[in-house]
Amino acid sequence: MNYDKNKSIQILQRTPVVLNELLNGLDEEWIMGNEGPQTFSPFDVLGHLLHGERTDWPVRINLVLEKGLSQPFESYDRFAMYHESKGKSMQDLLNEFTHLRNKNLFWFAELHLEDEDCNKEGMHPSLGVVTLRQLLSTWVVHDLTHIAQITRGMAEQYKEEVGPWAQYFRILNW
Amino acid sequence: MNYDKNKSIQILQRTPVVLNELLNGLDEEWIMGNEGPQTFSPFDVLGHLLHGERTDWPVRINLVLEKGLSQPFESYDRFAMYHESKGKSMQDLLNEFTHLRNKNLFWFAELHLEDEDCNKEGMHPSLGVVTLRQLLSTWVVHDLTHIAQITRGMAEQYKEEVGPWAQYFRILNW
Repeated sequence: MNYDKNKSIQILQRTPVVLNELLNGLDEEWIMGNEGPQTFSPFDVLGHLLHGERTDWPVRINLVLEKGLSQPFESYDRFAMYHESKGKSMQDLLNEFTHLRNKNLFWFAELHLEDEDCNKEGMHPSLGVVTLRQLLSTWVVHDLTHIAQITRGMAEQYKEEVGPWAQYFRILNW
Repeated sequence: MNYDKNKSIQILQRTPVVLNELLNGLDEEWIMGNEGPQTFSPFDVLGHLLHGERTDWPVRINLVLEKGLSQPFESYDRFAMYHESKGKSMQDLLNEFTHLRNKNLFWFAELHLEDEDCNKEGMHPSLGVVTLRQLLSTWVVHDLTHIAQITRGMAEQYKEEVGPWAQYFRILNW
């Protein structure tokens, strides 16, 4: 499948709605459980998505469009949510994420990007030269893989409870 | 996390809502793409979930409660959706799944299961003796892992488009 702006926006618009339906009002045990040491709980993932919305996607898109290769992106802090989410509830994070995502999509639509803009290049601090098309595709993939991570992690909370059925779920041994 | 009836119902109730928000109205390319030969597309997964709702979960729960070890479960047909979903749209499958899941949850609530009922045993055709607790936990895990599968598979549609970012997404090499 080739990158397509409208098909990508379909996903980016859905993510906050899907996460609200999945996580809002859910018991703490589902929300705070992770997949073992140094893995993210659904609560952690929400903070991580929120941090991306605030510091990464629109900022990097802007850098490509305005600075090209001359100014590398800032490194992304994958652990920022550990302090940023402190004292917040899942509902707080869902509300903030929904608000920021909608704001960013509104801003993105106003850019009126053309297909040829997607070939513009930026400088990633570790990956080197990347195109806007790759950055925009990654925004979508980042959403989808984190929904997969959240639901896989939730399933793992019952890994022992399913008894012999565990052997049918290769995903539980991720 | 130990099996808990109410915490499990939280998930089982959410699944059709989450899937509707994620998949309804989505472009065919997202819905029909799979993860390679002999893997499921989101459309296939919906048919599979629907088949389970129709032939598996309530039927097996009933068998445990009414027949115990004396009557083994039928084998589950993991490929039934290939003929059952023929000619249907994603919207059809979402509507049918939502209707059947809600009906099954209503039926399940009316069982008024007590904790000690969860120790009752049934006979799985391949796994042997299983408990009702294990079966009920598997219903939940089955939902969550299939949401994870759907979103992972959708992410993989852009695997080439993300360019060098692919190395940051271990999940894309599932």
